[in-house]
Amino acid sequence: MTTSTFGRLFCVTNFGESHGPAIGCVIDGCPPGMALSEADIQPDLDRRKPGTSRHVTQRREDDRVEILSGVYQGQTTGTPIALLIRNQDQRSKDYEDLVDTFRPGHADYTYWRKYGLRDPRGGGRSSARLTAPMVAAGAVARKWLFAEHGTRVHGWLEQLGPIAIAYEDGEEAGRNPFFAPNATVVAELERYMDELRRAGDSCGARLRVRAEGVPPGWGAPLAAKLDADIAAAMMGINAVKGVEIGAGFASVTQRGSEHGDEMSPAGFLSNHAGGVLGGISTGQAIEVAIALKPTSSIRLPRRSVNRAGAAVTVATEGRHDPCVGIRATPIAEAMLALVLMDHALLQRAQNGDVQLPVPPLAAGVG
Amino acid sequence: MTTSTFGRLFCVTNFGESHGPAIGCVIDGCPPGMALSEADIQPDLDRRKPGTSRHVTQRREDDRVEILSGVYQGQTTGTPIALLIRNQDQRSKDYEDLVDTFRPGHADYTYWRKYGLRDPRGGGRSSARLTAPMVAAGAVARKWLFAEHGTRVHGWLEQLGPIAIAYEDGEEAGRNPFFAPNATVVAELERYMDELRRAGDSCGARLRVRAEGVPPGWGAPLAAKLDADIAAAMMGINAVKGVEIGAGFASVTQRGSEHGDEMSPAGFLSNHAGGVLGGISTGQAIEVAIALKPTSSIRLPRRSVNRAGAAVTVATEGRHDPCVGIRATPIAEAMLALVLMDHALLQRAQNGDVQLPVPPLAAGVG
Amino acid sequence: MTTSTFGRLFCVTNFGESHGPAIGCVIDGCPPGMALSEADIQPDLDRRKPGTSRHVTQRREDDRVEILSGVYQGQTTGTPIALLIRNQDQRSKDYEDLVDTFRPGHADYTYWRKYGLRDPRGGGRSSARLTAPMVAAGAVARKWLFAEHGTRVHGWLEQLGPIAIAYEDGEEAGRNPFFAPNATVVAELERYMDELRRAGDSCGARLRVRAEGVPPGWGAPLAAKLDADIAAAMMGINAVKGVEIGAGFASVTQRGSEHGDEMSPAGFLSNHAGGVLGGISTGQAIEVAIALKPTSSIRLPRRSVNRAGAAVTVATEGRHDPCVGIRATPIAEAMLALVLMDHALLQRAQNGDVQLPVPPLAAGVG
Amino acid sequence: MTTSTFGRLFCVTNFGESHGPAIGCVIDGCPPGMALSEADIQPDLDRRKPGTSRHVTQRREDDRVEILSGVYQGQTTGTPIALLIRNQDQRSKDYEDLVDTFRPGHADYTYWRKYGLRDPRGGGRSSARLTAPMVAAGAVARKWLFAEHGTRVHGWLEQLGPIAIAYEDGEEAGRNPFFAPNATVVAELERYMDELRRAGDSCGARLRVRAEGVPPGWGAPLAAKLDADIAAAMMGINAVKGVEIGAGFASVTQRGSEHGDEMSPAGFLSNHAGGVLGGISTGQAIEVAIALKPTSSIRLPRRSVNRAGAAVTVATEGRHDPCVGIRATPIAEAMLALVLMDHALLQRAQNGDVQLPVPPLAAGVG
Repeated sequence: MTTSTFGRLFCVTNFGESHGPAIGCVIDGCPPGMALSEADIQPDLDRRKPGTSRHVTQRREDDRVEILSGVYQGQTTGTPIALLIRNQDQRSKDYEDLVDTFRPGHADYTYWRKYGLRDPRGGGRSSARLTAPMVAAGAVARKWLFAEHGTRVHGWLEQLGPIAIAYEDGEEAGRNPFFAPNATVVAELERYMDELRRAGDSCGARLRVRAEGVPPGWGAPLAAKLDADIAAAMMGINAVKGVEIGAGFASVTQRGSEHGDEMSPAGFLSNHAGGVLGGISTGQAIEVAIALKPTSSIRLPRRSVNRAGAAVTVATEGRHDPCVGIRATPIAEAMLALVLMDHALLQRAQNGDVQLPVPPLAAGVG
Repeated sequence: MTTSTFGRLFCVTNFGESHGPAIGCVIDGCPPGMALSEADIQPDLDRRKPGTSRHVTQRREDDRVEILSGVYQGQTTGTPIALLIRNQDQRSKDYEDLVDTFRPGHADYTYWRKYGLRDPRGGGRSSARLTAPMVAAGAVARKWLFAEHGTRVHGWLEQLGPIAIAYEDGEEAGRNPFFAPNATVVAELERYMDELRRAGDSCGARLRVRAEGVPPGWGAPLAAKLDADIAAAMMGINAVKGVEIGAGFASVTQRGSEHGDEMSPAGFLSNHAGGVLGGISTGQAIEVAIALKPTSSIRLPRRSVNRAGAAVTVATEGRHDPCVGIRATPIAEAMLALVLMDHALLQRAQNGDVQLPVPPLAAGVG
Repeated sequence: MTTSTFGRLFCVTNFGESHGPAIGCVIDGCPPGMALSEADIQPDLDRRKPGTSRHVTQRREDDRVEILSGVYQGQTTGTPIALLIRNQDQRSKDYEDLVDTFRPGHADYTYWRKYGLRDPRGGGRSSARLTAPMVAAGAVARKWLFAEHGTRVHGWLEQLGPIAIAYEDGEEAGRNPFFAPNATVVAELERYMDELRRAGDSCGARLRVRAEGVPPGWGAPLAAKLDADIAAAMMGINAVKGVEIGAGFASVTQRGSEHGDEMSPAGFLSNHAGGVLGGISTGQAIEVAIALKPTSSIRLPRRSVNRAGAAVTVATEGRHDPCVGIRATPIAEAMLALVLMDHALLQRAQNGDVQLPVPPLAAGVG
Repeated sequence: MTTSTFGRLFCVTNFGESHGPAIGCVIDGCPPGMALSEADIQPDLDRRKPGTSRHVTQRREDDRVEILSGVYQGQTTGTPIALLIRNQDQRSKDYEDLVDTFRPGHADYTYWRKYGLRDPRGGGRSSARLTAPMVAAGAVARKWLFAEHGTRVHGWLEQLGPIAIAYEDGEEAGRNPFFAPNATVVAELERYMDELRRAGDSCGARLRVRAEGVPPGWGAPLAAKLDADIAAAMMGINAVKGVEIGAGFASVTQRGSEHGDEMSPAGFLSNHAGGVLGGISTGQAIEVAIALKPTSSIRLPRRSVNRAGAAVTVATEGRHDPCVGIRATPIAEAMLALVLMDHALLQRAQNGDVQLPVPPLAAGVG
């Protein structure tokens, strides 16, 4: 039941702190016989890593992943796959003032109240750096999902602060540092980020992640609903404050005659459900949107307290993304892939024998 | 790892179908020595039950809960508390046409693809009726949380379809059938519901749930974040399509200098975080908002298919709430209470010894 | 992670106390589409129930099981199967002296120290009566295992106190009240039991349980070994103090050249492993032996203490089996079936695709 | 639910193969604020490691443990403690014949049938080498248990093949390579081992592990019994075929008037229960005995089959302990400590508030 393990059958146990010797994870439950090497994982890590543009933190981490177990002669063996990423950019500096002061919007205070002590170096375990092992594990899940079911997961930036980004071209999201699916908006995004950086401030973001090629039947009633698991996975990403499936909050003002997705012999006629009904996949695309709060570490001075409860002022200098949402796209993709992988195995466990006389409905719109 | 069990240490195993002999749950992990009887549970069930106004389904269920175990001489013994609710209003009718046809927006199709067969009576296991055992379990959690920590959970309707409801008076939410915290809006809500009913259509809703008196330190990094668990609990409620913690989607357009909650010796100065930072409670109120989709069962005819894949038209007559969101307030309260209870025990397990020299910050605003 | 749930994927959540309103369980994870009714379960319950001979407790319980959920039109639906057994023979008597006194060899003292209070009626939750729901759940597992894999589980009495019982005929174990696989020894067993009863004393027993038709590959390395799970299941049965797999404690004096089971194209040549190597099934019969301690409730006076810590003398009158091991055979069979069922699903989850060019080795000897 | 994670709240996720790059584990749930460094762990690893005498395998592994996370400034932080042990003695040799042939008594065949492929190098994941991370994790548990509760765990060899070893001096078990609590028997053990080695054969062993200073109340009814968890932990150790708690199999021939441990104001008067009643600790010493089978890798030729099902002869040359039981003492100690640690936290989670007016009974005899 470990509180650091994600998943029921495809289980990812995450460990490490931002500035400790290493971070990593142990993947348990991966099916055997799949070709796997570091080369399958590194590209997703590289998409997430800092230092790729001037708009994200300049910390220089190679983030080279090493497979420690679970692979023999290039194939998964079915035993735990341990992935190790050594921390390399551990600048020696005095963290003693940091340990005494709580940065507004950070987990500094909550970790201290929970554990009575905390590792202040780079945010310790609360650092977004700990999403790297999830991205690595997600790469393993993505490979299996695609090979077995043709499932593909991709995400993009929908909004950066006040700037909404129209979806033009999913491929483009892989070509610019914002994961924006629209080349024409990139210049505007860059100007906005430069302005934020000069102001010493930060902004939020909205992302979308979509999974296509998910068969119907994944998920389970009540306590293992696919959408509930997705919500947990997304809300568990650093800085996420909201999650929507399908129509999300727009459902509030929809009428039933609009929202409920009709079906025809040719397939579904809309996808307000976002690919999940009753906690179980419909066979349509899984549609997820998330809101990320603005980076808490900003140069502007802020009121806070120290461990003794006295008033202090905090201004955070140094390497920080003005928008943590920018680098979150590969993270959200990975988390969605991990949830899907888990449910693929869960479905096989209980319902591996189920056969129906007619094929699934076409995914249709959405 | 059962897929019908909610929680890690305060575990609620849910069973039953809408029109089977009974529904219920087994609560495992409840601390011993707490006074408990059916009278502690029934009021919350009554708040959720159908038939309380003309705006919700007229199914007449007494929903009388019976405690089958885990209580001796009026006190919890620490062993599983089994709660049973017999189904009484099982109208005999022919469900055979229902079993062959998939209602748009329902779980009919997904259950069939998952399991190869399904119980069509009243939605079977996908019915919102299965939230009743969660409400019952939530009542147990709420009693313990209040006794041990002074924690209180309460919710209300924020929006019904297009009608936003200004918060005026939390007590009022307990006095009208809409759980609206504002007496003046009730007439408008009634008119809107009547209009919907005449149109044979339905609408969505937005609810808010708040927990006050949550100590700092509940939650855990990475895979057991308090907000992630809340998100799962909420998204797992029937018809929920979106979840926000604190500022939620408004975070997207906030700047860091606005969003990050400052602290002072007198306490927190705002609560955009919604009471959770780094997955761990801050000591402020936990703030959750959810979006519920419009009821899928409507009188207006809709296009669908049957089990053979042929086109059919579906129009759902009978007892159905035009807005499922109305009765969801006690459900959302219960789910939040269950998550908090679970984390109260989890915190005690690992960090029962932690003591700090200064008391928690005051909850302050929010 | 509930402490009252047995299993990972075929999960049995047990509830109830000996003299409360009811006992029962919720089975989660059962594959759908299997024919199931109370008639599939009742026979195993009847084999376990008291009152079947003068050698077991005369408590008259019908132990009628009721299926509350998870079955529709005679087939499992894949949703939780709740099983309810009402307690009927709750003699009204004063348990107040019992609650104050701890019976030697009983859980009275440990429950009190753990929970601070306890239900003293008939042993409360520590009663062997709570194995009835496990037997009921085991019947469901047995039906599926046999239908899917041809797996059969059967057990018998190997020793009653000092009397070793030679295996003659497995069918005979179903015909006498001792589950003795040997008709000629029954008279001797009866005499011994009568003598014990006159003496106001009790004796231990040794049972064997065997599962045939278990395919190779069930189990998992390290933390989910098949033999480890079996050991837990068996040691968790009331009164069990020892568990052996295969050669068990005889392995201590065996040499490697004797113990290690050789293989030939015709199959395994011996079965000292008891059907498990490296925590994974070999395809041979699973062989398990267990030791049960003598009944703790005896008429002979015994020294003890009360809740205040003062010395008392305890002599237990009333209905008690002089040998709890006698009725344990169907319980041990059920627990073994539950473990196997769980691993059948676990194997399918991770390794459902694995195919090998040659069939498994024949089970061969044992 | 990962199949490589041991424990419910103090969770040890094990990874690695005998001859892969590294082995290790991730400990989740360790309470914060405990002083911890590699120096606390290394001594237990050294007690287990090969090469310490001519009677155990001569593989030279330094087995240096590295703490990768969860410790800051010499104190546990409450976050996962990752422990890494690099494999150093990976002799390059051709394992291709091994991968094709199944050694009798080994997991070669079962891994192959389960996964469809296997890592043959040194037994891969089925190697006893994978107990090293459990020993490391056990050292962490032992430190906490002793600091918080004064709990101490120690074990010794009770029998080596045919040679029973009388208990004389627990300290002596730490001074000879056999973990024999009796100096006078060591010469005889050495002679027996030499004879075995010359014969190319191997033998079994019987160990005892005892935990003193375990408070009453640890464990839980039904599915989380302390003795059941211990049984699983012990049976999960490589080569273990039998487990006893307290009187174990001797219970079969005991009478109730002998077995049931009487109590007096001065404490318990015997300990046939082995410190557990109803699955919950009594406050007496936890007494566990285990049987280990003879080493399967022997020089004597044995009949087997290859992957094509054809007959082969196998004779295992090389570095192998003639008795795997010898080095199992620190492993069994570690596993017992892990179970106890887990239950210490579980008890605090649910029953942290329970207070009784009288202190626990003295452990008394045993």
